[in-house]
Amino acid sequence: MTLITNNQTPPDPALPPRLAALGYAARSATSPLAPFHFERRLPGPHDVQIEIQYCGICHSDLHAVRGEWQGSVYPMVPGHEIIGRVTRVGPEVTGFMAGDLVGVGCLVDSCRTCAACREHLEQYCDSGFTLTYNSPDPHTGGVTYGGYSNRIVVDQRFVLRIPEQLDPAACAPLLCAGITTYSPLRHWEVGPGQRVGIVGLGGLGHMGVKFARAFGAEVVLFTTSPGKAADAKRLGAHEVVISSDPAAMAAHASRFDFILNTVAAAHNLDPFITLLKRDGILCLLGVPELPHPSPAVGGLIFRRRQLVGSLIGGLQETQQMLDFCGKHDIVSDIELIPIQQLNAAYERLLRGDVKYRFVIDMGSLASPSR
Amino acid sequence: MTLITNNQTPPDPALPPRLAALGYAARSATSPLAPFHFERRLPGPHDVQIEIQYCGICHSDLHAVRGEWQGSVYPMVPGHEIIGRVTRVGPEVTGFMAGDLVGVGCLVDSCRTCAACREHLEQYCDSGFTLTYNSPDPHTGGVTYGGYSNRIVVDQRFVLRIPEQLDPAACAPLLCAGITTYSPLRHWEVGPGQRVGIVGLGGLGHMGVKFARAFGAEVVLFTTSPGKAADAKRLGAHEVVISSDPAAMAAHASRFDFILNTVAAAHNLDPFITLLKRDGILCLLGVPELPHPSPAVGGLIFRRRQLVGSLIGGLQETQQMLDFCGKHDIVSDIELIPIQQLNAAYERLLRGDVKYRFVIDMGSLASPSR
Repeated sequence: MTLITNNQTPPDPALPPRLAALGYAARSATSPLAPFHFERRLPGPHDVQIEIQYCGICHSDLHAVRGEWQGSVYPMVPGHEIIGRVTRVGPEVTGFMAGDLVGVGCLVDSCRTCAACREHLEQYCDSGFTLTYNSPDPHTGGVTYGGYSNRIVVDQRFVLRIPEQLDPAACAPLLCAGITTYSPLRHWEVGPGQRVGIVGLGGLGHMGVKFARAFGAEVVLFTTSPGKAADAKRLGAHEVVISSDPAAMAAHASRFDFILNTVAAAHNLDPFITLLKRDGILCLLGVPELPHPSPAVGGLIFRRRQLVGSLIGGLQETQQMLDFCGKHDIVSDIELIPIQQLNAAYERLLRGDVKYRFVIDMGSLASPSR
Repeated sequence: MTLITNNQTPPDPALPPRLAALGYAARSATSPLAPFHFERRLPGPHDVQIEIQYCGICHSDLHAVRGEWQGSVYPMVPGHEIIGRVTRVGPEVTGFMAGDLVGVGCLVDSCRTCAACREHLEQYCDSGFTLTYNSPDPHTGGVTYGGYSNRIVVDQRFVLRIPEQLDPAACAPLLCAGITTYSPLRHWEVGPGQRVGIVGLGGLGHMGVKFARAFGAEVVLFTTSPGKAADAKRLGAHEVVISSDPAAMAAHASRFDFILNTVAAAHNLDPFITLLKRDGILCLLGVPELPHPSPAVGGLIFRRRQLVGSLIGGLQETQQMLDFCGKHDIVSDIELIPIQQLNAAYERLLRGDVKYRFVIDMGSLASPSR
């Protein structure tokens, strides 16, 4: 395995010292991820320095690494489902101290002044947020490096408290898969007396099932894989419908208040729109590489149905989600891997062969022999 | 002009007598509309008999007449923007008496027992409503005949009171174009402090402009026709944007709370979705013959925007709309025509050559020489 190092000039003595970091990076859209030495900023007055213990592998990491979305910058250190312990805080930090178990999700900064930021909806920041990786980094002038690494420095506003009673490794996916499903279910007030559909049983879908069930809804999981039915019920689904079976789908026509569609691959949305009651909502969470077939407008008009989208969640809501998980003992179902299995895990992810999220045990980073 | 008559067997003396009626009907998808003698039921205990004075020409009449939608039955008497005077009422009718100025819109019946009907949302009746024309008619066993005729008999629940202070001819389009725009603007609570877009300045669009302005919103009319700008402002738009001008559109990115899209022809929805603020709503009113290009999911996700549809309005809300129009002196801008100009009006409608709704003066039906 190749060791990549920063392609940088010798340190300028006039610049402040930096923090040495080690991670795994992709050097190009076609290279495997490999060890990568780089630097982080030293914690400023409002910053929290975190020793990373676990980092989840989100499907979007794979898209970004492989350059399937615009704007991939290499070397790229992915990872935005970060769990770790605070090792140092800046003098102005009030909410955290060394030793705290914390998390970092998809965002590490936003403008803080726009209407969205003032309403604690940093994910919709009008000026554009700073993503945890592959985003222009105002501190370094380069790009941000994510959680497939041993440490990170993040402004306290973008650091989350992790309930100590939960398995910290299994909390990592809450920071993206968790909040991405929690936020729309909360925003559209899913709860008791409602019939809620979750489409797709992957990293997002399995969290959607857990949350929708915890919120008191009647939960139906839609999948094309009959083999997932038993597991879906174990996770909390009251019922499983094979979405490729027209008769099974027809039996559910106009019965759903809300459907959370976690499938990003292009597919026909009309069979799900047809399942909605009057005023029902189909919420999309993933951007397909190729467009979905155009949904039939009549399906929206004749029952005043809504097709909507939702993006992760704000910091305040993410903290509420974590607190809710602590109270209700909700975590992700994960498969913990050493970082040396990263590339193999990506291949398995592509095949959908994971229940339901890979999480990297960052302790393995210091054991290169594995 | 050919006189069409019902292709019927001699009256069965065991059947109750019927009411002779005269209207204009299409005999096939390709025939011009021509005079048509037919029968209506006599008013039952809950029925109101109405002498029709005016009937608006809705674009959907043209689609139905020409068989462009499924289910056209001929002969077809179109018309669902009906204004007239009550001439007779059944013994159980409580809300109307002879001489009242009344209206009938798109619906003449619904199941009355489903959740939608109980919530005064007959337009979303779970069992299927009875349309004013070309709908199976449980009373006659045939199909319903619409307002291009001299009289009609309608259950009192589906009859509306028309404010006497308004021009009755100009009220006819309120029964479809009016309520179709009023209902979504009310449902999604458009009002002061909001920026609202109306796409298209036709029968629906010009009512959308009037209502959105009356509700206190800042109103921007989107059109591809620069020649419509002055008229749009006269109708109440604060601003007009030429939607085919990318620079003009870009200047309005993410500024709209709500956009009412009255254009049924297939077109790219993304430029309008892009205009929405976070949580903004694009509401579609028309079903295109061919599908719109598939909207970009990212446009929905990245600002939690909503793509929705809306269908006319319920009876209670239609009455509220009419009362609002009476109070605020709102009617449609119309061109009144004798029924003999119907076929020519259809051709002009196809060219968009009407400001903004043709209304048939039904008095002309008795003057065949015109």
